[in-house]
Amino acid sequence: MDLSLELIKEIARPSPTRIVLLVIDGLGGLPNPETGKTELETANTPNLDKLAAKGICGLIDPVSPGITPGSAPGHLALFGYNPISFNIGRGVLEAIGIDFDLQPGDVAARGNFCTVDATGLVTDRRAGRISTQKCSELCQLLDGLVIENTKIFVCPVREHRFIAVFRGQGLAPDISDSDPQQLGVAPKSITALSLETDKMAGIANQFIAQAKTTLAKCYPANMILLRGFSKLPQFPIMGEVYKLKPAAIASYPMYRGLAKLVGMEILETRTTIEDEFATLKRNYTNYDFFFLHIKETDSAGEDGDFDRKVRIIEQVDKALAELINMEPDVIVVTGDHSTPALIRGHSWHPVPILLYSKWCRPDKVSQFSESACILGGLGRFPATQIMPLAMANALKLTKFGA
Amino acid sequence: MDLSLELIKEIARPSPTRIVLLVIDGLGGLPNPETGKTELETANTPNLDKLAAKGICGLIDPVSPGITPGSAPGHLALFGYNPISFNIGRGVLEAIGIDFDLQPGDVAARGNFCTVDATGLVTDRRAGRISTQKCSELCQLLDGLVIENTKIFVCPVREHRFIAVFRGQGLAPDISDSDPQQLGVAPKSITALSLETDKMAGIANQFIAQAKTTLAKCYPANMILLRGFSKLPQFPIMGEVYKLKPAAIASYPMYRGLAKLVGMEILETRTTIEDEFATLKRNYTNYDFFFLHIKETDSAGEDGDFDRKVRIIEQVDKALAELINMEPDVIVVTGDHSTPALIRGHSWHPVPILLYSKWCRPDKVSQFSESACILGGLGRFPATQIMPLAMANALKLTKFGA
Repeated sequence: MDLSLELIKEIARPSPTRIVLLVIDGLGGLPNPETGKTELETANTPNLDKLAAKGICGLIDPVSPGITPGSAPGHLALFGYNPISFNIGRGVLEAIGIDFDLQPGDVAARGNFCTVDATGLVTDRRAGRISTQKCSELCQLLDGLVIENTKIFVCPVREHRFIAVFRGQGLAPDISDSDPQQLGVAPKSITALSLETDKMAGIANQFIAQAKTTLAKCYPANMILLRGFSKLPQFPIMGEVYKLKPAAIASYPMYRGLAKLVGMEILETRTTIEDEFATLKRNYTNYDFFFLHIKETDSAGEDGDFDRKVRIIEQVDKALAELINMEPDVIVVTGDHSTPALIRGHSWHPVPILLYSKWCRPDKVSQFSESACILGGLGRFPATQIMPLAMANALKLTKFGA
Repeated sequence: MDLSLELIKEIARPSPTRIVLLVIDGLGGLPNPETGKTELETANTPNLDKLAAKGICGLIDPVSPGITPGSAPGHLALFGYNPISFNIGRGVLEAIGIDFDLQPGDVAARGNFCTVDATGLVTDRRAGRISTQKCSELCQLLDGLVIENTKIFVCPVREHRFIAVFRGQGLAPDISDSDPQQLGVAPKSITALSLETDKMAGIANQFIAQAKTTLAKCYPANMILLRGFSKLPQFPIMGEVYKLKPAAIASYPMYRGLAKLVGMEILETRTTIEDEFATLKRNYTNYDFFFLHIKETDSAGEDGDFDRKVRIIEQVDKALAELINMEPDVIVVTGDHSTPALIRGHSWHPVPILLYSKWCRPDKVSQFSESACILGGLGRFPATQIMPLAMANALKLTKFGA
């Protein structure tokens, strides 16, 4: 049975209790073949283990068993939003990822610089993966065009990737991609996919035509491909669904952007792990829900650096001591997905979770690790159920039915 | 969250890795009261135990806890098709079960020979369970009739059961049953349940009338009852959903038929357990997915023969050695449901599952058994999630969302 946010909204009530959701990005791992232990099992984590012993543990599936989640679905699930039905367009996601100040009427697209031959056929969808520096220079050539009273912002992302944001009156994102997703063919002409988007399609095609002219001498980046046209989605906000006053602490723009989409206030923070915990402490009395995001574990996993991931987990464990001293009513520690150093990327493996509260009904797990969490009292469950559990443990949910 | 096949289709990609799904029909059991051990726990299974130790284990619910599955829902779930929404009509299922070569336009019905009294009221819905031999003889009397250019095939199944298959132009299965499902009333007249099925209802009624005349002197089998009119369903095929090249090895027609419905290629095989494994070996390089079905465990369970079921499990274990040597990327061993010898039939008990791959994140289970699997890292989960898990472990699924 899938709990709807509507149902939660009906039974949620404000209360003075406080919840901290600590997300250690890419937390789950795979065993080092030499030791048989994962990154988390290798790390020395006295504080996490103490919390696990006092709390209740389990394993979460961010989307569904076998599915490897991107960062957006992984986080939406942690916030209690079904990541299959709550969708974020690719253009919007890229814009969020570089902290672009997207406005409600904007239409954003993900762009690639690409290579076309003399007859206009795509020969490299990534223009030889030009440097980010080069990408920035090319974006400046295209940035700021105005077509039919619509201003077009063009901003670099990384290597050949950029975003194009269309700002004007009456724009809608329901148009096709120009990216043909294959070589040897011409970029597609963009077409309207609904009655209201003829104008938008026309502007996008004009923009691409102008870009082609401007980039003509910029081989290998002599053309662009656009896809994933989208607008900021209108998600129900956490303040209304959960009756919470939620705040987010994250050093990477993507996670701040995702938190903003569900209505969290974004706290200014410096960027080390210790900084983030200090930011939480400084703001502790002003909010009743904190999402604290640690990025470095995921980056270490993506780099295949097992030992660095171990050290970062130990660093988080150390920083946790002070948070525990502040005695939040509910502490949840988990990840948005696994990023095993052995796989060098996100993976489908379920993620350890621990929940501590005065009311949690502790199990016998006394170590926070993948293998110990298998036997935890929370069992294996979908990540979307974390928020109702945390809310219940904070005594913020009333009875369902009479 | 119910993952749709549509979603899987979007993220599946072909790859050179290979998956073997070994289905030991009716695998799960109940403990022998004298020993406290189930069939699987009693069997000596060094190969399964070795795989369990290297792999990850759990328990599956084919349909849902408490629900005893038939063979069709049990297998559809294993193939990743939600057995509640993917339905196979009773007539089609019986036709598949006897290897009848059903064509896309055919309408198939499940039939009973029954007894009616002088006034036409049903006195025995099974005609005293006539022998299969007798059933064959009676079917020959009815087989091959042509009514309104529609040819009617009548084939014996077992005892009083047969199938009637209607082959002609413009037939549709949406008509009511003639079987009243009770005694002391007349067989029902068949009626059209949609605008297009008047013709079909008329033909079915004429067929029944002719059968009544033909069988008048064949007491106790002096009438027929028809139900479950249905056509071959159009399921999405595994090649498209999973981008696999799938093959099925099964010695019983029902399982070949089910595999065919989801687009597997059916491999010619001799019928012993050893034969089936040899067929897999012979075809190993030609496919990237194998469904290998072992029927005998279920038959032993249905017969209430605990010891025979133990011996068959041991025989499978022995045959498994060579498969392990072939080093498929992913091996899944499970059943389509439990068939405890103590119950002498299918049951609702969850079924042990083991999954082995290089990327499986092993748990501490070192014996393949019901009680050990309770503590497995896969936990307890719906059988429809097996395919996504197997695909993920074969690195055949890309990331969901960015």
